[in-house]
Order: sequence, then C-alpha cells, then structure tokens
Amino acid sequence: MEKLTVIKVGGKIVEETDSLNELLKRFSSIEGHKVLVHGGGRSATAIASKLGIESKMVNGRRITDEDMLKVVTMVYGGLVNKNIVASLQASGINALGLTGADMNIMLSDKRPVKDIDYGFVGDVKSVNAALIADLIAKGVVPVLAPLTHDGKGSLLNTNADTIAGEAAKALASYFDVTLVYCFEKNGVLSDENNDDSVISEITKEYFSKLVEDKIVQGGMIPKLENAFQAIDAGVKKVVITQAANIGDFSLGTKCI
Amino acid sequence: MEKLTVIKVGGKIVEETDSLNELLKRFSSIEGHKVLVHGGGRSATAIASKLGIESKMVNGRRITDEDMLKVVTMVYGGLVNKNIVASLQASGINALGLTGADMNIMLSDKRPVKDIDYGFVGDVKSVNAALIADLIAKGVVPVLAPLTHDGKGSLLNTNADTIAGEAAKALASYFDVTLVYCFEKNGVLSDENNDDSVISEITKEYFSKLVEDKIVQGGMIPKLENAFQAIDAGVKKVVITQAANIGDFSLGTKCI
Repeated sequence: MEKLTVIKVGGKIVEETDSLNELLKRFSSIEGHKVLVHGGGRSATAIASKLGIESKMVNGRRITDEDMLKVVTMVYGGLVNKNIVASLQASGINALGLTGADMNIMLSDKRPVKDIDYGFVGDVKSVNAALIADLIAKGVVPVLAPLTHDGKGSLLNTNADTIAGEAAKALASYFDVTLVYCFEKNGVLSDENNDDSVISEITKEYFSKLVEDKIVQGGMIPKLENAFQAIDAGVKKVVITQAANIGDFSLGTKCI
Repeated sequence: MEKLTVIKVGGKIVEETDSLNELLKRFSSIEGHKVLVHGGGRSATAIASKLGIESKMVNGRRITDEDMLKVVTMVYGGLVNKNIVASLQASGINALGLTGADMNIMLSDKRPVKDIDYGFVGDVKSVNAALIADLIAKGVVPVLAPLTHDGKGSLLNTNADTIAGEAAKALASYFDVTLVYCFEKNGVLSDENNDDSVISEITKEYFSKLVEDKIVQGGMIPKLENAFQAIDAGVKKVVITQAANIGDFSLGTKCI
C-alpha cells in the first residue's frame, strides 16, 4: 500500500499568517500522500466576540448553540479552511477543503445531553472514505475542517483530534497511514519539566506502565488512548510532536 | 454524452431557510447529473454590517477589500455553501461544496484597477474540470461558491453568474450541458410590464433583432450575451427563468 500521512494541527499555528505559512511549507515538503486536519478555535472566539456572541467552554470544549454553529461554520469551513487551501495551491499542492458534510465523508450523532448540553456538537458515527481515498490516490490533498453533519441537514461542531483519528482509521483500508498529532511539546515527556525528555517510542504495554507509574498524566492519557485506538483500527503508527517537527517526525513520540 | 444541468441561483432564495428548502427540493428532483452555483450577497452584507464593515457596491458589484474578502470567504465558502451541502445530503444528494481554490478548479486574475478598484475580485482565467467531471460521473453534486483564487495564495470574490458560465463551458467537454440562470422573472419578457410575455426561445440572430428593436434592454443584454457565449463554447442550451420553475424549464426562456 502507498503511504499516507494524516496531520492534525490546531491552535494559533493555523490562525496566524507567519506561522501558518511556515507550517504549510513544512507540510508541503512531506513526501507521498497527505491529509491536513485543522482547528480554528481562536479565530472562532474572536469572530464570535466581534459579533457579540459569547464563547462558552466546558472542559476545554466549546458549547455550540445555534449562533455559535453559524460562527464555526463560517470560520472553520470558510475562513480557515479556504485560506489554507488557497495557500497550499500556491505551493503546488492540489488541496481540497472538506467538512464532514461534503461527499458525506463524516456522519455524526448530535451529542446527547447528559450533565452538559454541548449543543450542536457531533460524535462521529461513520466515515465514507472511498471517494476521498480515490482523490488522494490521484494526488489531491484533503484539508479537513472540524465540522461533521447529522445527515438531517445540520452541521455539527466536531473535535479536530477526533476528525483526524477517524479519517486515519477509515483511510487505513486504502493506505499505509501515519497519523500525526501536533501539540505544544516535542513529544510525550518522561519529565514534564524537561522538554528534552521525549519518550521516543511507546507500545500499548509500555503506555499502561507509564500511566501506572504516573509518568503520563492528565490530558496526555486520552490523547494516547486515541492513538492506540487508531493503531488497533489499522493505522500503522501515531506520532505525537510539535508542528515545528513536521518533516522530521523522529523528534517526536512514536506510538506503535 | 450524459446530461448535466448547471443551475445558478442567487439572491435571498438561498439565504432564507424556507425558500432555500423549497429550492433544494426542486433541485433534488432534477434528473441526471447536476451542479448548483450559489450567491450569498445579502448574508455577506448582513454579517459585514454586524462586524462593523461597510459594504460598498459599484454598478451592483461588491468592492472587496481585505476585510470584506474575509467576510465573503466566511459567508460564501462557509455559511451558505456548507449549509446547502448539509441540506442536500439530508435529501440524499451527495453534495460537495467547492470554491475555485479547491482542487484548483477555477483560477482567476485579480481585476486590474482602471477607474474603479474592485479590490480582491477575480476574473476567471482557467477552469480545471477533469477531477470534478470525474466526481460528477460518480454521482457527486458540486455546489460552487462564488470564490476563485489567484494561484498565489489569495482567494478572490467572483461573480456567481460567471462561475456558472465558466463551469458549464468547461464541463461541456464531458457532458451534454444545460445551464440555467435563475432570476426574479419567469424568463426574458417581450413586454416588461407583463410577466406572462415570456419569449420561449431565442437564437443568436433573434437576440440581435430583440436588441435592435429595444425589446431586450439593460441588464438583460449582458445576461443573454453570457448565455450565447456559453453556447458558442459548447453548452447545449441556456435557460433563463425563476427558481420556482426549477423542474419545469419549459416555463422559461431557452437560448439555443
């Protein structure tokens, strides 16, 4: 199978012109087929605020009421996505911006209300990867916005890490997939106060031990759980690193 | 060749939920392959206004400065486009929202400044229809936003009638294309005060005569010129009618 790299980049990197251009340069240099998954939360918050709409977050997740859904549809699906696409095209990358509604690639269920009503937020239910796999094989580079749809006419705000994981898993039937999660550190650290203490490789067994020994804690646990879930579903490897290392993934943590 | 209908709908029809749903129902009922091209000017003006950005129009065309480009990218590429896509998906239509930057389908030149600086406005230079023609043949329904790109990283605001005409012309190499321009009347009228005086068929020769006799005047002239330009470029027929007639194009004016 041909190689495919699925890269998720969030945060201000994709929202500031200089860092975005640097990122896209690195992304363009990756050989073989690739997919970019982006966030855009800071821009959504800024545009919402200008429109007089308050951003409410619970556990780091955005509460998405009807007005906020319009904002994220504009910002994720329009502003951020289409500017990345136009920039990649300028680098000779044949980018195609997509939400989950486009070609019905990602169908979600609106998250049920339990303690918290997250509003128009989607939990991915199914992925239709055949058409994008075909486009990727023809040289197209999908750029995925963190939006899915419910199949009943409504778009749903969806976590970009989840989009990346689900896309990688679905594409694993067609390609030899490496999934890369970019975050603010070089990788998973064995000492949180030492940025150079990157653990270069983690297996599922080693992960259990790291959690047991309290070396891996907090938000890193669900991130790694997602990584191993992707591997169980056929993804070849998952790299956790920072965007500056795109192009040299050996600097990050490899989950296998 | 298989049949393809390219429909351009602008105005408030695509921007109000009830009329949009009615339109999409009619659009869904069209047999065979199809493409939808939409506008979104009213929403752009409304969002711009809420963001404190003034909309400046010259000869009915929007002056698109840097801030306004962000607004139209959000509104055309995100809000309007993705909501249409999600609604069509709910009707079982495998819609795919696209700007000209996506898969590099429509490349433009930024309009040169003469008397008026229109800003980030594009005049279409080339259309790459191969990939979308292939998707259309596979049952995908492209939904085109009125945005193109300059190939240097910038999106450009582009007239939706032009997008529809250029798409129809480029797709004429792959399909037997009918191009439909929806506007507020049933068709081209022989008496502007009588909505029932629709001219059912116009040839290029008859068009010259209608202009000579001052039966066709004003904004109708460039519309018909575009229609015959499309026919010269291989489009089978162009229908000018109102959105309510989608599904029964015999009620409109057919240019052949």
